[in-house]
Amino acid sequence: MTDRTALVTALAYHRAWTGHDFELAMTYVAPDIVVDAPAGRLEGAQAFRAFMGPFERMLTASELVAAFGDEETAVLMYRTETVVVPDAPGAEHLTIHNGLITRMRIVFDRLPFEAARKA
Amino acid sequence: MTDRTALVTALAYHRAWTGHDFELAMTYVAPDIVVDAPAGRLEGAQAFRAFMGPFERMLTASELVAAFGDEETAVLMYRTETVVVPDAPGAEHLTIHNGLITRMRIVFDRLPFEAARKA
Repeated sequence: MTDRTALVTALAYHRAWTGHDFELAMTYVAPDIVVDAPAGRLEGAQAFRAFMGPFERMLTASELVAAFGDEETAVLMYRTETVVVPDAPGAEHLTIHNGLITRMRIVFDRLPFEAARKA
Repeated sequence: MTDRTALVTALAYHRAWTGHDFELAMTYVAPDIVVDAPAGRLEGAQAFRAFMGPFERMLTASELVAAFGDEETAVLMYRTETVVVPDAPGAEHLTIHNGLITRMRIVFDRLPFEAARKA
């Protein structure tokens, strides 16, 4: 058996925010989290909250496509449905220490969100 | 031990196209592959070739960020550097049968490519 402790935390975080319990989700986020997002690097839990909170509030449905992990890292891919974009898949690579997400790379397509913003 | 046969194929495919052997990469692609890409669904190896070939030719560097898999599926996350966009991460969820990729969901940010196209 591989040690999938990171995946347990990653899935708890994922279930929390996709279940609209954003404050619970934030309890899995390290104060000094570093996030590489499409628009650039975010540093610290407050910057992450400002990025992810508005997205969580737009979310109307989600589906987990894939989830894998080992001792320290996990990868999630998921689909989301939001009030502005009907099909917005995303992928995250998470590094987890002591039950907290310290690093995240998040990949998604900003183009439909930009198009919706302009419309 | 988990059975990671899908990951072996996924990595062979990945090493081939990031190593600029696109024809070798295509040998891992099922003729009837179905791909969900940011711009929509692609059906068949020829449609996939028309999508992925031009990207491979733009590639100047790449780095594998994460790779996980089980018997039938794999997830890869990677960074790419291209002639038009200097930092373009991507993620793929692959389904593999008999050593061939039959399904792929690929996530990346089209926005910087669209901006480069307009510039």
